[in-house]
Amino acid sequence: MSIRIIEGGVTAARGFQAASCDAGIKYRSRPDMAMIFSDSPCVFAGTFTSNVVKAAPVLWDRDLLRSGAPVRAVVINAGIANAATGETGLRLCRESAECAARDLGIDPSAVLLGSTGVIGPNLPMDRLSAGIHRLSSSLSSSLEAGTAASRAIMTTDTVNKEFAVAFDLPAAGGSGTVTVHLGGMSKGSGMIHPNMSTMLAYLTTDCAISREMLQRLTSAAVQDTFNMITVDGDTSTNDTLLVLAGGEAGNEPITVEGEASALFGEALEAVCRHLAIRMAGDGEGASHLIETRVLGADTKEHARLLAKSVVGSSLVKAMVFGRDANCGRILCALGYAGVDFDPAAIEVFMEDSRNQVCFYREGHVLDFDEEKALAILSGPEVRFVCDMKMGSGEATAWGCDLTYDYVKINGDYRT
Amino acid sequence: MSIRIIEGGVTAARGFQAASCDAGIKYRSRPDMAMIFSDSPCVFAGTFTSNVVKAAPVLWDRDLLRSGAPVRAVVINAGIANAATGETGLRLCRESAECAARDLGIDPSAVLLGSTGVIGPNLPMDRLSAGIHRLSSSLSSSLEAGTAASRAIMTTDTVNKEFAVAFDLPAAGGSGTVTVHLGGMSKGSGMIHPNMSTMLAYLTTDCAISREMLQRLTSAAVQDTFNMITVDGDTSTNDTLLVLAGGEAGNEPITVEGEASALFGEALEAVCRHLAIRMAGDGEGASHLIETRVLGADTKEHARLLAKSVVGSSLVKAMVFGRDANCGRILCALGYAGVDFDPAAIEVFMEDSRNQVCFYREGHVLDFDEEKALAILSGPEVRFVCDMKMGSGEATAWGCDLTYDYVKINGDYRT
Repeated sequence: MSIRIIEGGVTAARGFQAASCDAGIKYRSRPDMAMIFSDSPCVFAGTFTSNVVKAAPVLWDRDLLRSGAPVRAVVINAGIANAATGETGLRLCRESAECAARDLGIDPSAVLLGSTGVIGPNLPMDRLSAGIHRLSSSLSSSLEAGTAASRAIMTTDTVNKEFAVAFDLPAAGGSGTVTVHLGGMSKGSGMIHPNMSTMLAYLTTDCAISREMLQRLTSAAVQDTFNMITVDGDTSTNDTLLVLAGGEAGNEPITVEGEASALFGEALEAVCRHLAIRMAGDGEGASHLIETRVLGADTKEHARLLAKSVVGSSLVKAMVFGRDANCGRILCALGYAGVDFDPAAIEVFMEDSRNQVCFYREGHVLDFDEEKALAILSGPEVRFVCDMKMGSGEATAWGCDLTYDYVKINGDYRT
Repeated sequence: MSIRIIEGGVTAARGFQAASCDAGIKYRSRPDMAMIFSDSPCVFAGTFTSNVVKAAPVLWDRDLLRSGAPVRAVVINAGIANAATGETGLRLCRESAECAARDLGIDPSAVLLGSTGVIGPNLPMDRLSAGIHRLSSSLSSSLEAGTAASRAIMTTDTVNKEFAVAFDLPAAGGSGTVTVHLGGMSKGSGMIHPNMSTMLAYLTTDCAISREMLQRLTSAAVQDTFNMITVDGDTSTNDTLLVLAGGEAGNEPITVEGEASALFGEALEAVCRHLAIRMAGDGEGASHLIETRVLGADTKEHARLLAKSVVGSSLVKAMVFGRDANCGRILCALGYAGVDFDPAAIEVFMEDSRNQVCFYREGHVLDFDEEKALAILSGPEVRFVCDMKMGSGEATAWGCDLTYDYVKINGDYRT
């Protein structure tokens, strides 16, 4: 019952179509709108930003999630976040959903919405409607359509992010197995510090699963994946993860804890982790992916706090950019994580796939091999391993370096 | 009973001397050690970093503070932080205090220590001792000696920071008043996010005051001053504020709450605030001081969290550097501060001493005057005012913009 990586993203699962178009919302001459459509009604699960200032589409999706009714479509635009837009923003959500519902012959309450971009401006409703018409009439179940959708939702992202897996589950009725598919796309590069960033992630699956089980497994999967990445410490107003399950795989529906729910949960976490790491590595201006693995913490929650503190430190990020092994900064970031530990007991390493350097042990920064450290810092991915020697709590967090380009991109984002 | 700004820093108060020298700890051809000496035994108060990884001199000073015994001297070096140095670091502290004690004819337990610089390396004891000898033999009560000391403790600081005030208190015995002096110096530019950075601050006063009252007023003064600034969100291993009171002013000793303690507390807060704002404005690479004032929060603590969230946001900092009034980012930072509020109720302004722009009201980012906003962002100081419309909680936080130079300085700090 192993999980296999397959091609594609949101159209990898049976029963899902996607489309994208250049609607001119803000960007010129590049696709900036996408649609996902399910041939059958979907149960869905979601997690949203914890920011008090929630974008209008976040409020819209949250209300649909609370209602519990099935959904059929997701409409997403890049360029304008529809956040801090008050009642106008909510009205534009309603109008967008109504527009899509008319075109697709479904109910407005079956249309989820997502936006990413500048906070403050209103969406241009005329361009949005024209975009929705074009999306509705160009849906396709091809893998290419899914890939094009993952490109259309990008803002400062430099690469699109999609991933899909397949695994086998018992067939409905009990004879033999069927293959279930789970795929997704995400975007996110700046304002990334998900607590549940402007991170948008959409997953689709043909798995038959109850709404309650899907939400439980989604909420769990987020903890060690999307919630463990940071680019700049800014938790966006628009963070959204939605998982749509159409049920066309024909598996025995998953409604209780068991082998099937465990396997689906594992697949969900694999897709979320892949998309999350891709976002961290593609952080605005980033030249390195930074992974921090904490072992031996007293609790898992403390391991998470320690790992996030290191990848979130401006000084650690700048040091990785500068390839300067100023390793005391790792110690400093562990120390202000809000977790108690014995500085004399812990051990800290820096490594990549070929080299490992221990730079702190028994309360001292060691006289480590600077050449080896430079070799590690010269690669595209750096891993710090912190063994707290307290217990069995483990966690991994991902971030990126702080570069001149981050400052450039964000000093002049609106233009 | 007003507070008057006077010239000088740590030698502004009667009974205090200072010295500085070029000891070659790490920097070449610039002063990097300083000493403060009190002619009479001082009660003292202190607050230290909350980082779990505490530098050796922080542990040394904390032990002296706990002992309650009076002190006579402070020895400070820049270049090496003596942090993450284990037992060796503590031994070097003991040896430094013993060296200074011999030279000054006092007890080692009357010598406070402070270090700032790179985390990890050991202090070179030979250079340190040679420096202490030179400091001990060149003490002076001149204002210039205090200013030179404030320069010697700088690391990446671009300007020295000192400030002093005077005020009148009832004379001891009850007839007439005497003038009391309070002055101080500080350093700090990066790794600044005091929770009680490598921020070092030393204040001296000739006020007669009990140790308990001095500690109570110092702990209170820190809350709205040093603890309300941030440069990079990294809380250092070495943060130290020490206030030494020698008592030579001849005032009626302050031992209980009253007008005199209130006036001294106000003076203490004024000096701390001035030094704190100077540190925020001189943040590594900074081109703007950013002040955020929160009004109308439900509690003071919530006002503090909101104000600190705005000045700490990488995206707000980059926007100020880029002079791009992408004001939705202020809303976003308020929203993830961890404080609940109604986004539809609040009002947010940007201002300097001449212009004010309201850019958010009734749940909307407004169509504000971009030219006026650019004028504000073109000045050296920008203030954001956030009226939460909930209660009477107020707080102000200070930070600086995120610039190419911050990345440059911290990508290559050790060399």
